[in-house]
Amino acid sequence: MAGNSFGRIFKITTFGESHGPAIGVVIDGVPPCLPLTEADIQFELDKRRPGQSSITTQRNEPDSVEILSGVFEKQTTGTPIALLIRNKDQRSTDYSDIKDTFRPGHADYTYMQKYGIRDWRGGGRASGRETASRVAAGAVAKIILRKYNINIIAYTRAIAGIYAQKIDYSVIEKNDVRCPDMDAAELMKQRIKEAQENKDSVGGIIEAVVHGCPAGLGEPVFDKLDALLAHALLSIGAVKGIEFGAGFHAAEMTGAKHNDKMYVDGDKIRTVTNNAGGILGGISNGEDIVLRLAVKPTASISQSQQTTTTSMKDTSIEIKGRHDPCICPRIVAVVEAMIAITLADCLMIHRAKSILP
Amino acid sequence: MAGNSFGRIFKITTFGESHGPAIGVVIDGVPPCLPLTEADIQFELDKRRPGQSSITTQRNEPDSVEILSGVFEKQTTGTPIALLIRNKDQRSTDYSDIKDTFRPGHADYTYMQKYGIRDWRGGGRASGRETASRVAAGAVAKIILRKYNINIIAYTRAIAGIYAQKIDYSVIEKNDVRCPDMDAAELMKQRIKEAQENKDSVGGIIEAVVHGCPAGLGEPVFDKLDALLAHALLSIGAVKGIEFGAGFHAAEMTGAKHNDKMYVDGDKIRTVTNNAGGILGGISNGEDIVLRLAVKPTASISQSQQTTTTSMKDTSIEIKGRHDPCICPRIVAVVEAMIAITLADCLMIHRAKSILP
Amino acid sequence: MAGNSFGRIFKITTFGESHGPAIGVVIDGVPPCLPLTEADIQFELDKRRPGQSSITTQRNEPDSVEILSGVFEKQTTGTPIALLIRNKDQRSTDYSDIKDTFRPGHADYTYMQKYGIRDWRGGGRASGRETASRVAAGAVAKIILRKYNINIIAYTRAIAGIYAQKIDYSVIEKNDVRCPDMDAAELMKQRIKEAQENKDSVGGIIEAVVHGCPAGLGEPVFDKLDALLAHALLSIGAVKGIEFGAGFHAAEMTGAKHNDKMYVDGDKIRTVTNNAGGILGGISNGEDIVLRLAVKPTASISQSQQTTTTSMKDTSIEIKGRHDPCICPRIVAVVEAMIAITLADCLMIHRAKSILP
Amino acid sequence: MAGNSFGRIFKITTFGESHGPAIGVVIDGVPPCLPLTEADIQFELDKRRPGQSSITTQRNEPDSVEILSGVFEKQTTGTPIALLIRNKDQRSTDYSDIKDTFRPGHADYTYMQKYGIRDWRGGGRASGRETASRVAAGAVAKIILRKYNINIIAYTRAIAGIYAQKIDYSVIEKNDVRCPDMDAAELMKQRIKEAQENKDSVGGIIEAVVHGCPAGLGEPVFDKLDALLAHALLSIGAVKGIEFGAGFHAAEMTGAKHNDKMYVDGDKIRTVTNNAGGILGGISNGEDIVLRLAVKPTASISQSQQTTTTSMKDTSIEIKGRHDPCICPRIVAVVEAMIAITLADCLMIHRAKSILP
Repeated sequence: MAGNSFGRIFKITTFGESHGPAIGVVIDGVPPCLPLTEADIQFELDKRRPGQSSITTQRNEPDSVEILSGVFEKQTTGTPIALLIRNKDQRSTDYSDIKDTFRPGHADYTYMQKYGIRDWRGGGRASGRETASRVAAGAVAKIILRKYNINIIAYTRAIAGIYAQKIDYSVIEKNDVRCPDMDAAELMKQRIKEAQENKDSVGGIIEAVVHGCPAGLGEPVFDKLDALLAHALLSIGAVKGIEFGAGFHAAEMTGAKHNDKMYVDGDKIRTVTNNAGGILGGISNGEDIVLRLAVKPTASISQSQQTTTTSMKDTSIEIKGRHDPCICPRIVAVVEAMIAITLADCLMIHRAKSILP
Repeated sequence: MAGNSFGRIFKITTFGESHGPAIGVVIDGVPPCLPLTEADIQFELDKRRPGQSSITTQRNEPDSVEILSGVFEKQTTGTPIALLIRNKDQRSTDYSDIKDTFRPGHADYTYMQKYGIRDWRGGGRASGRETASRVAAGAVAKIILRKYNINIIAYTRAIAGIYAQKIDYSVIEKNDVRCPDMDAAELMKQRIKEAQENKDSVGGIIEAVVHGCPAGLGEPVFDKLDALLAHALLSIGAVKGIEFGAGFHAAEMTGAKHNDKMYVDGDKIRTVTNNAGGILGGISNGEDIVLRLAVKPTASISQSQQTTTTSMKDTSIEIKGRHDPCICPRIVAVVEAMIAITLADCLMIHRAKSILP
Repeated sequence: MAGNSFGRIFKITTFGESHGPAIGVVIDGVPPCLPLTEADIQFELDKRRPGQSSITTQRNEPDSVEILSGVFEKQTTGTPIALLIRNKDQRSTDYSDIKDTFRPGHADYTYMQKYGIRDWRGGGRASGRETASRVAAGAVAKIILRKYNINIIAYTRAIAGIYAQKIDYSVIEKNDVRCPDMDAAELMKQRIKEAQENKDSVGGIIEAVVHGCPAGLGEPVFDKLDALLAHALLSIGAVKGIEFGAGFHAAEMTGAKHNDKMYVDGDKIRTVTNNAGGILGGISNGEDIVLRLAVKPTASISQSQQTTTTSMKDTSIEIKGRHDPCICPRIVAVVEAMIAITLADCLMIHRAKSILP
Repeated sequence: MAGNSFGRIFKITTFGESHGPAIGVVIDGVPPCLPLTEADIQFELDKRRPGQSSITTQRNEPDSVEILSGVFEKQTTGTPIALLIRNKDQRSTDYSDIKDTFRPGHADYTYMQKYGIRDWRGGGRASGRETASRVAAGAVAKIILRKYNINIIAYTRAIAGIYAQKIDYSVIEKNDVRCPDMDAAELMKQRIKEAQENKDSVGGIIEAVVHGCPAGLGEPVFDKLDALLAHALLSIGAVKGIEFGAGFHAAEMTGAKHNDKMYVDGDKIRTVTNNAGGILGGISNGEDIVLRLAVKPTASISQSQQTTTTSMKDTSIEIKGRHDPCICPRIVAVVEAMIAITLADCLMIHRAKSILP
């Protein structure tokens, strides 16, 4: 209700500010008897960690996680799992000059309008730092999905107008932008560096594919799987759009083209194409779930921008501090996490329905 | 949890199948002492009603609504408002030939996978008919919004690749496709007729603008206003994508271009551009909320399509019955309703926060 | 959130006023493929129906139910089941003299304080009539429970200080007060008649026993099974207290006496006594669930009572209309329904946890 | 859904096991701009702290709380407040002999049935230690209530059959059992000491009174104020019953006696008696809210008890470790906290309804 929880049975509640003592998450509803260690979570957190390459923020956060509850002798117990990540490299003073100024493209003004108070240190709760909690929770969700052989892969499809021309999963972790096309990756990185030199930033498109999702997930009519995924993914600060399957391209297609022809394949029913993106009527149909996200350019740029003070005077600002010139490479881990959390929750809800003994 | 409710304080629960005895909605959480009559609801329902023009389904449903509860002497009482719409023009026999066949692009197969049973009459619960309940509930939400001078306008921005070139609200209700550009409307209608003749269908893009939304709505971090609107709007069957403000275009912009410059305008802070689409950090900033939806071509087409039987045999189908060759003109009312419901809920949640006496 | 829904996965939303056109309920989350007809629901409704004996209200309501959705060819489909009961025998004029007066012991004053408006016809939403919706929903829940061989029996344990001395389930439906002891039943009825003659009313105690509940239901820590049942049962208007197992008597026991000794019984672990009432640490332990409810005397009595007008003047009132001199005989059906709804929901939640394939 | 959250707008989620690294709570929905320091919370925690007298467990826990988020410059910011309490004096070895045995009166067996795994160290999640998180959250709720001049007082009404004969709030904190009657307190303490010597334990009755609660709180029909309070309070492990106002005594009263006569008192409407306990039709009426709780004798006793092993063999057990011979003195703080949380939530929900500008 107050907005810091997501999920229904597999439910996460995150807390923490960018420059407060710690951030973290409580995961309620994790099935018991799953193997879980801090290393499992750390593995995912490291993909999102700041400072991992020359084109990410140089804030030095180990992001090491502590399991506070819910795990006994390396197994989940069915009770809530609390995960804690201490903030280590806060430099609040970097932000003292934004105390009295609203940064364009940021939530400074809107938080002030909503709450009448603002923790201005590093964006406070509105900082992307909050998403580390989601990645930690996603690591737990992924353990459930693995039992079902459900596999989520997200990657950078485009940055600054450069599009991946081929999709080779094996190279995603081999370049700094997490692109499945090494050549495009090189160009993307170049564009990012250019933007950085211009005291500017760039946006991009993240694509995600879910392999192995069983048919039947999602709850009509309001909790359609695509509606839930949209909710989950639009809750990531920088995401400004989402599309499934043919997406906005569908708007220009005819029904005869867009409808995916169906055929029998052994004991399964499959579709020839996948314009639906794996979801029909809000329920997964067993095909790959395919979605794309529009990611806006990082709002924090160091060139001078027109803005206002908190006391309603026109002014300009040059944002200092350590920022990502493009958030795409690091957001990939967050996208996978939010999809994992949504699917784990849907699996559990679906299971609840098949109640009859 | 089971998916037929939406909203938190202003909460709707819809029920009913396309060819069952009735559809309807229970709205819980409506503030007391609001004026409400059946005519207020009918006005909105008529915008969505089948048979309103030559390019909509000829199913003859008066969609007349009965208020069953929650209203006393033409005022809301604070108790749940149940609205009932009897189905009148069911022709289930139209559908008897789809009883044993899955229609491509429809939820037939996925419902079967999820529930193991399927009300095949007219799509059952998955039918677009369900959205009449939403429009009825939206009419009540709009009464709340009107008190705040919040105004929602949705319209057809594109159909079959034809885009409105100008936005003149005054003509939206003056053409059959609900387009704010009469010339474009004419072309759109032509394309729809062509598709109809080809036993085919077409898709389009709906745009919606909210004027007068106060700053401060939306709940970080998971119930961001854009995340909630995405949830609400992707829950409409035919919608396959959503974008806010600059949307997917933002992916190719730089930060310097995308960030909306801020300035002081009297006692308000405004932005020069509105690439954010009226939402920053998940909270409304007082500018217009602007969003666009990708609407797929109607799945029901009468040309022959490759598919399978429910008993896992390859086959083909020609869909009979009465269908919209393009759903855009009628979906406009549903889009407005879902936005209204979301905003009314957010207003109430926001109010709950400002609790101090 | 607005209070007219109960349950999480098996979730009911009721609506309707005593003297409005209809009351009803939407049940969301019912598992698919369960057999269900209107007769199943009518059977339970008839136990609660007014006018069933000389000591119940003579309002003549057939309480006949119509299934509006969610059932296809006599089976549930997994979609929401809407049930409608039209009000037939409204005599709102009976209530015109209470329009401007608050009835003692009723919700008249509190509804006015909460909502600033009041449907004064027969108590409006606060009327016990609302509970018919619960009984209808409970009938559906019972179908689920029957699959698990879970059996709920509620009965009048005491009325006006007369206690059942023996518990013979077979006679419960053989006397007008639904007491498991025919001799006590006779005395109880006598007391009720006396109260009626004195223009007064009497209260009592309802006891409920659940046989066959499997161990493992209930969710620590806040959704303990006893906490959920208390929530469910205290939501019935006339109930002013609840206790489980030894209940208030436990306050005077020592641990050695109160702790139920455990022993192995075949492949089960059982307890020698059942002071816990079948619930330990908020989770069912496989023993009978046993609880008792304090039911207050009916607030509507026809003798003169001191009260105030709605315009803040002292006055007195003699309540006319048709009322139960003791609500116990009819509340039994409501108690069973609320227990059934709670357990069906807990079963489904529990099932969601055992997700691993 | 998974049971570790309580509340709707003011919503707490607790985590942690008795002998894990820490326990804690995340409070979401706290209004912004409230003054809050760790000292405010510590003050309440100290009332519940172990080792505070000779008749409480000698486990030595400072229970010192750390605010991890949601507070900036000693004010709440509207973002989630995470509170952390490290466990310091775990002696898990005390419990190694219960690893393979189910303790009577405890949740050992039911957790095993539910989850198939059990953190046996000190009762794990089922330990009363979990309630420290509730007291911490309650301290925050009380800050809200104080703004409304709502005051909650809970105390020991009875222990082992000894009842307080007078109610003098000023002495509650002056005796070890938190009884409002010093003479009764002395006798109660004596009975507790006797039980301790007999390797036994005793139960009691807690009474709570809320002064200053405005009329209008609680949501009909399922979230009646008494239903919510019952849910909140029955979720405390040792509580086995609850009653409001006249409570179980109402079962023997007539309507004429039970109905509280109403009269005009200045600009208020008051009642002569308070048999309703401050709640009518599930909504507060402005009179004191009065409730009583049955608290069972502590399950952990050191005399030999008949039980079974986890591998289904009959056995006996003598429970070692440090336990309270009567939980009443310490549960008082938990009762106040749960009432405070419930009322803060109801206040916020109620405020949401009065939305009209």
